[in-house]
Amino acid sequence: MRKAAERRQELTEALVRAAETVIRREGLHALKARNLAKEVGCSLGAIYNVFPDMDALILRVNARTLADFGRTLERLNSASRKSAAKQANPAIDRLVQLAISYLDIAVKNRRRWRALFDHRMSKGRELPKWYRDAQAPLFLLVEEPLRQLRPKSSEKERTLLARSMFAAVHGVVSLGLDEKLMPVSTKVLCRQIKEIVSALGHGLLVTGKHQKD
Amino acid sequence: MRKAAERRQELTEALVRAAETVIRREGLHALKARNLAKEVGCSLGAIYNVFPDMDALILRVNARTLADFGRTLERLNSASRKSAAKQANPAIDRLVQLAISYLDIAVKNRRRWRALFDHRMSKGRELPKWYRDAQAPLFLLVEEPLRQLRPKSSEKERTLLARSMFAAVHGVVSLGLDEKLMPVSTKVLCRQIKEIVSALGHGLLVTGKHQKD
Repeated sequence: MRKAAERRQELTEALVRAAETVIRREGLHALKARNLAKEVGCSLGAIYNVFPDMDALILRVNARTLADFGRTLERLNSASRKSAAKQANPAIDRLVQLAISYLDIAVKNRRRWRALFDHRMSKGRELPKWYRDAQAPLFLLVEEPLRQLRPKSSEKERTLLARSMFAAVHGVVSLGLDEKLMPVSTKVLCRQIKEIVSALGHGLLVTGKHQKD
Repeated sequence: MRKAAERRQELTEALVRAAETVIRREGLHALKARNLAKEVGCSLGAIYNVFPDMDALILRVNARTLADFGRTLERLNSASRKSAAKQANPAIDRLVQLAISYLDIAVKNRRRWRALFDHRMSKGRELPKWYRDAQAPLFLLVEEPLRQLRPKSSEKERTLLARSMFAAVHGVVSLGLDEKLMPVSTKVLCRQIKEIVSALGHGLLVTGKHQKD
């Protein structure tokens, strides 16, 4: 006879997989507890035996997405690092490459990517620490080249700057793909991202010169 | 006896005002045709006599919001222009001031501001030209200082760049106020925006030097 813990683990995984499939195919808005229960063949109540609420389930899917995107970014990042020797400023080139890779990931995984940002915790609760910890490795990829552009910045300043850099790139990718502001092709969007991130990188070098040791 | 056109005009205005009030108080998600009809005292069908669909009504409210925000930005912009003489680079200072003003507007008009970006045209239709035209004056405020930073750019390049600059700032403001990435205070967010926009401005000067005449 299988142990209860084992069955619980299996149900958890089945629910996460089923939820991810719905998000991949239709998007976060299509995710309903009732349909998930039908899909994995459990009762509605059984979902809430393994997850405290739908937020917890969605965060599990989103954390998988983060890990998946992180692996892709790291792979593309180390590939670009090898070819970066010929660049005038390898750190700026790395930031540009990361941003282009981010656009590529967003285009190829549109619904899972949107789910990362569209999900709101119910009742205005805060994101749990384990989820914030799952975000951290992706920001580390940005912090690394920033360390070269801003060697005098403190760890805390760099952490904040990496998040702001990401948010800026996310804004360009997000509004660009939404065609909210101006209908642009992915090719034009790619050029715009290069322009913005390259300017940001060069500018951080300039404004960093006024920083105290 | 009042003319039909006059009554139509009055109903249109009443609906736009009522819809704006709902967005101000509760947000775009709370807007329902049925409740609006009750609020202004007309039948549900009467709404669709003056607006082809809810999209058209929401765009009317959003266009009012754009005009309202545009007036605030222009006022703050010309106030900062007067005090910009003492700055090292007035164009960069103007861009930073615009971004800070944008943050201020977003904080003070959270729900109307979110409605501008949360609204999606139904059935994937495109935004009408009149609405795009209503967005244009706000981008002009960004294009003006860009003309000084990038005098060699074509009109088309500058138009695109202004939209990308806006999208970058919007990303930092939007994710920052959402506390999705990191819980930050408005004060810290303000400092981050200054850092990002200042770097962008200085960087555009540097990378612009390689542009052909």
